[in-house]
Amino acid sequence: MSPTHAKTPSLIVFDVNETLSDMSPLAEKFETVGLPPHEREAWFAGLLRDGFSLTSVGENPDFAQLAAESLRLRLRGRCPEQDLDRHVDTVMMAFGQLGVHPDVVAGIRSLRSTGIRLVTLSNGSTSLAEGLLERAGITAEFEKLMGVADGPAWKPTAGSYRRALEVCGVQADQAMLVAVHPWDIDGAARAGMRTGWLRRGAAGYPSYFHAPEVEVDDLLELAVALA
Amino acid sequence: MSPTHAKTPSLIVFDVNETLSDMSPLAEKFETVGLPPHEREAWFAGLLRDGFSLTSVGENPDFAQLAAESLRLRLRGRCPEQDLDRHVDTVMMAFGQLGVHPDVVAGIRSLRSTGIRLVTLSNGSTSLAEGLLERAGITAEFEKLMGVADGPAWKPTAGSYRRALEVCGVQADQAMLVAVHPWDIDGAARAGMRTGWLRRGAAGYPSYFHAPEVEVDDLLELAVALA
Repeated sequence: MSPTHAKTPSLIVFDVNETLSDMSPLAEKFETVGLPPHEREAWFAGLLRDGFSLTSVGENPDFAQLAAESLRLRLRGRCPEQDLDRHVDTVMMAFGQLGVHPDVVAGIRSLRSTGIRLVTLSNGSTSLAEGLLERAGITAEFEKLMGVADGPAWKPTAGSYRRALEVCGVQADQAMLVAVHPWDIDGAARAGMRTGWLRRGAAGYPSYFHAPEVEVDDLLELAVALA
Repeated sequence: MSPTHAKTPSLIVFDVNETLSDMSPLAEKFETVGLPPHEREAWFAGLLRDGFSLTSVGENPDFAQLAAESLRLRLRGRCPEQDLDRHVDTVMMAFGQLGVHPDVVAGIRSLRSTGIRLVTLSNGSTSLAEGLLERAGITAEFEKLMGVADGPAWKPTAGSYRRALEVCGVQADQAMLVAVHPWDIDGAARAGMRTGWLRRGAAGYPSYFHAPEVEVDDLLELAVALA
């Protein structure tokens, strides 16, 4: 639907990685450790592939372990063995020091100023989200930062969203999941939540996933749409 | 364990994509349609990521639809809109015309000659496996070609392997899943099957997945290991 006529939700549940954080600086870190910068995309897709694979068989894996281990396998044989640990650390440290996208600070303040409650729910660790929002100076705008490690399973399983909504005491249809990843939108829609997809330059939304209720380029546009 | 001392299974269940088929020619097709050849890896990882995402919420999606649609989104905005269908067709046609890896014909014949029953189980369509084995001239070595579309869900869910074993009338511990993908090895191991991992040049096996019983470089080595 048009982004200019959406009912204001009580609660927005934000995804974190790539939705709030800008992962593009990792490309440079890949180069630093001797990997082609374009491999960042395949690495991150493969990390989610493996995480969802484990999710589909009932596991709740550790995001950081999957990230570091899949990076280590990608580096192995392409750098001296004694440099492996250091190179993995270089990229993982940078992953823990990312900044937010340019629209995030103003967009979050604008959304919060309308009275909407804001929380995060990440497949990654809560400490990663804490650091990210702290560096951006917007920690105070968020009521709660949540990770799937405290719940039954990763997103996009329904239980992951339901657990977050329970913690917040909000009905699914009063809450909106906002994410850049279509698989996250799909899972939230299946769990009965409202959904807002951040395009962030994407060419389109896959037809095999539940479509988002609201589509916007960035958080500033979302704030206008939900005002 | 050492690949030279494994008990012979009654049945080998082969994965198809990348395990038997050599997907490297798709890189050239990516170039033909104006995409960097290295994007083949991110595309395939993303296709599995989205497929596993849908699997984790109980769907049994169509592999070819996910493949074509995710390719279309990758092409959009990077070629004239009127070329989109043709470019998607170019890559998908090539995907349907792949050949097998160099070790496959001799390896399959050698395994079959020891009396082991051979079948395939793919997340992709059965017709893709049929064409692949037909072109390689080894169709007759296989008792049955199976796809997850006829079962409850994609691999790596336990139900996908169990359904295949039921069809073949074989107990899980008498059957070995052979694949290049660690997530497939992991799922089969969880379903109680024996497992054989084809390295095919991989730098290592992720520690977050169940380890394979047998590790070999290719099917010739597997035939020796199981003789």
